[in-house]
Amino acid sequence: MKNVLVGQSGGPTAVINSSLYGVITASLARTDEVDVVYGLINGIEGIFEDRILNLSDDLSEEDRELLVTTPGAYLGSCRYKLPSDLNDPVYALIFEKFAKWEIAYFFYIGGNDSMDTAHKLSAYAEKIGSPVRILGLPKTVDNDLVHTDHTPGFGSAAKYVAATVREIAIDASVYTKPAVTIVEIMGRHAGWLTAASALARQFEGDNPLLIYLPEAPFSLSDFTEQVKDCLQKKSAVVVCISEGIKDADGTFICEYGQGDALVDTFGHKKLTGAGKYLEEYLIDTLGIKARSVELNVCQRASSIYQSLTDVNEAIASGKFAVDSAINGHTGMMVGFTRVSDEPYALSYHLHPAAEICNQERVVPQEWICGDGTDVSEEMLVYLRPLIQGETVTPMADGLPQFAYRRY
Amino acid sequence: MKNVLVGQSGGPTAVINSSLYGVITASLARTDEVDVVYGLINGIEGIFEDRILNLSDDLSEEDRELLVTTPGAYLGSCRYKLPSDLNDPVYALIFEKFAKWEIAYFFYIGGNDSMDTAHKLSAYAEKIGSPVRILGLPKTVDNDLVHTDHTPGFGSAAKYVAATVREIAIDASVYTKPAVTIVEIMGRHAGWLTAASALARQFEGDNPLLIYLPEAPFSLSDFTEQVKDCLQKKSAVVVCISEGIKDADGTFICEYGQGDALVDTFGHKKLTGAGKYLEEYLIDTLGIKARSVELNVCQRASSIYQSLTDVNEAIASGKFAVDSAINGHTGMMVGFTRVSDEPYALSYHLHPAAEICNQERVVPQEWICGDGTDVSEEMLVYLRPLIQGETVTPMADGLPQFAYRRY
Repeated sequence: MKNVLVGQSGGPTAVINSSLYGVITASLARTDEVDVVYGLINGIEGIFEDRILNLSDDLSEEDRELLVTTPGAYLGSCRYKLPSDLNDPVYALIFEKFAKWEIAYFFYIGGNDSMDTAHKLSAYAEKIGSPVRILGLPKTVDNDLVHTDHTPGFGSAAKYVAATVREIAIDASVYTKPAVTIVEIMGRHAGWLTAASALARQFEGDNPLLIYLPEAPFSLSDFTEQVKDCLQKKSAVVVCISEGIKDADGTFICEYGQGDALVDTFGHKKLTGAGKYLEEYLIDTLGIKARSVELNVCQRASSIYQSLTDVNEAIASGKFAVDSAINGHTGMMVGFTRVSDEPYALSYHLHPAAEICNQERVVPQEWICGDGTDVSEEMLVYLRPLIQGETVTPMADGLPQFAYRRY
Repeated sequence: MKNVLVGQSGGPTAVINSSLYGVITASLARTDEVDVVYGLINGIEGIFEDRILNLSDDLSEEDRELLVTTPGAYLGSCRYKLPSDLNDPVYALIFEKFAKWEIAYFFYIGGNDSMDTAHKLSAYAEKIGSPVRILGLPKTVDNDLVHTDHTPGFGSAAKYVAATVREIAIDASVYTKPAVTIVEIMGRHAGWLTAASALARQFEGDNPLLIYLPEAPFSLSDFTEQVKDCLQKKSAVVVCISEGIKDADGTFICEYGQGDALVDTFGHKKLTGAGKYLEEYLIDTLGIKARSVELNVCQRASSIYQSLTDVNEAIASGKFAVDSAINGHTGMMVGFTRVSDEPYALSYHLHPAAEICNQERVVPQEWICGDGTDVSEEMLVYLRPLIQGETVTPMADGLPQFAYRRY
């Protein structure tokens, strides 16, 4: 028996199940090389308790098709870091399980930490001479993985952010009274997703008027002046910020609001987001109406603005992983190479998983412009192809239908 | 000349422009009775400066069609309360403008306060013997207007809430570690929109496990016990709350966090939402992982989950208003009468605007169950028809295209 095992790890995205769909369908198609396709519940954590689902037999065709438009991680996820020491008994345990389930190919869909897992497991396989082939499939809304043009999940999140900021800007512009709306977008260290808010603009001079990424040092006094300037031009100003914006000293703006004075009745420090902090700062200093909106988990949890390009690439990455593993590759992550921007063309490659983990790809300085308040045309050229095309989510009784594990 | 003037007021919804579309198309169709259709920019505030748009000539057919799926208020909005004293000179000023623009019919799309405006203007018209006929078209995401089964805008917001809570619940359920996600939904006094989160459930025992409305007194100690009970059954618990939940004494939960201890470095009180407060309360008292998500303006600003039923009813309310005004009615609001739940059937009626304003329709106690933690089947029967059907938003370059005023 040569079986496939596939798992998901880290925070979900709108297309992590599309990648899963790609692995499942490509594996099922290789009837000569693959016997059974198993799903690993809650990632590598689930293997210790044999939390394994027979996807060949127990996943209905209807549910399999629903995976493509279902957000979240169908198999469940985990945050689990394998020890650095390959002599740790956990490795022997995992490979015993691989043997028990006759796993020939293990696919792990995730971000940075998941590539660390893929790397360590393949290193252990090499060490003990195990034939199990292990490949990583990229996934993140942050788009911060290195050695790939972009990652599945990012395009859909970018589309969600751009469309939602466009809607928020329209909502914000209905009154004549000067007001600032701050939209806080995911991205602790990398501003890719916040940069996508620039796509929201429908015309010259449209909102968002100001965009701040973690890659450019943020100054409260510059911010105040920039907002005042914008209010001269437009009564409704929309500002998009990354949750991780920081000042020249490297202090996160969200930490500003957490001094000793800001404690609750239990004496605990209150955590305030950067958006909330800046909202209150503007009210205090400029005496204007300000509001903050945190897109929160919706930007990664929603599949309503799935990018068809993103979905198709996620599925293709699954097929590429299966084909590569069967062709003998291991210890690698599937990466994307952009062949051209227009017409947009992509090819797939493999890159050692060891060189992916523990690194972050940030926005290049030359793609940030306007004294750190905007992104350049190069950024837009990079972003545009990733949000193209729409999927159709099956609806029933007025609501989107999603696949869920029935046990 | 007999002209139509139409304006929008209050907070926007996903279909306030559908109502506008209904007024415009119905007016344009009555060529014998209506000469020009004018749009009033920023509601009644705009009339003093003649901020009036010729919709007959200057609104392209393309933009007119785009209105149906465009969120926000195309004409802009205002929050303006007319004085109670009909002898106030502001009334004469408004009717001078009506005369100048040869307005025969004035339609005002809005909520409570807008019906107050419609009422007062029609009372003034009667007082001076003006033939201008004034009708109100309902609009609110809160669904709290009296003398109508429901209001345009609510169905789409309810659909957005149900779909988004379903997505958030899926996202929250990927890990095995016990965690509570609190979703804060609009509704200061009426829990209709929060009740719609019950539609998110895909199967028996699905999230949201707890739903709290402002109509049922909220107790922190009961809440703690109810959350603990739920965590016995499910590791990922989703709780939906109205922003306006309050305790038995009538104190808003969002006020709990605003004691003297909670001040920033400027000495200002910090405003914390009920969701954020309960998140921190659970972390403090149960020592578990908790997170809060405020749906914020997105629930009224997004048109992505427009309910086709809602859109069609909004358009129909516009046509009904135009026909009613031409038939001689004034000082009334268009209301909805539910003829039957299944098959769902609706009829339209007129109700004196004077009896709409300054009242709020809240959720009946008998539709709240589970000791104030859930809503009844009657509520679901009421809600279901309102979210049925989907619209198709025109997309370009990967993003929704919306109508906007080009000046």
